[in-house]
Amino acid sequence: MHPADAPKDTIEERLAALEAEKDEYLNDLKRVAAEFENYRKRVTRDQERLVARAHERLVKELLPVLDDLERALAAAEEHEEAKLEEGVRLVHRELKAALDREGLAQIETDGSFDPHVHEALLTQPSEAEEGSVLEVLQKGYKLGDRVLRPARVVVAAPREEAGGR
Amino acid sequence: MHPADAPKDTIEERLAALEAEKDEYLNDLKRVAAEFENYRKRVTRDQERLVARAHERLVKELLPVLDDLERALAAAEEHEEAKLEEGVRLVHRELKAALDREGLAQIETDGSFDPHVHEALLTQPSEAEEGSVLEVLQKGYKLGDRVLRPARVVVAAPREEAGGR
Repeated sequence: MHPADAPKDTIEERLAALEAEKDEYLNDLKRVAAEFENYRKRVTRDQERLVARAHERLVKELLPVLDDLERALAAAEEHEEAKLEEGVRLVHRELKAALDREGLAQIETDGSFDPHVHEALLTQPSEAEEGSVLEVLQKGYKLGDRVLRPARVVVAAPREEAGGR
Repeated sequence: MHPADAPKDTIEERLAALEAEKDEYLNDLKRVAAEFENYRKRVTRDQERLVARAHERLVKELLPVLDDLERALAAAEEHEEAKLEEGVRLVHRELKAALDREGLAQIETDGSFDPHVHEALLTQPSEAEEGSVLEVLQKGYKLGDRVLRPARVVVAAPREEAGGR
């Protein structure tokens, strides 16, 4: 059907309907764009707050550690050695527990040297298999999948061949 | 001008132009909505990463504290009291420094009781002015503007009036 063949009110109706549809899309477009902009602004604010709050929780967990450490120091001042020692054990347990809750995990050092999680500070001649970890000089830690610090280790050197000397 | 009075190609042109305009708005609407949706998804991922990274930095700063605490424990095992005491002082200094860098601040307790940052555990008759802080039972801390823990204090009771007994 050619528009000209349609009765005149039908063409007017089509024009009006199209106009209304166009206006509706334009309004939707304006609304979505405004929502997007508001969301963007909110996200920036939220992220700042999120980081601040994330720290807050962890810092708060460390307050009892700080308290007990100060108590241990007071015991040291008084030369109460047993109390000092007990206090240090308590502080260690608390700090370890707080960090465990964060997902901190010690890096395994049993077995072979693994360059992804170990750092070889020395190689040493040894009866052990070449490349096995002989000693841990500094513990390594992971947080989730990420290596925060590699374990610093001593690695077994290749064995000298019989009569190599 | 009534549409019916316009030449037929003009009405067709108007219809076509309106249709094109409508399509353009619809396309813009779809594009902005898709961008919005992608942004929303990205934000969710970013926020998780942001919190994880925020923790990572602080946890990493605490590793040397943990190391030195373990060294102090080893000194305790060996009954090297001087080394233990020195170690505890070092650990305290390190933990305090790490928390200071996070913005942790001790709540002031000089002067009058302030219900916003102090918690009165006891009131005690005293020569001091009513409502002044007599003793701090547990230190309080703030992180930025937020009170992580109020200072727990003993407060001076109202002075008994002369001949009040």
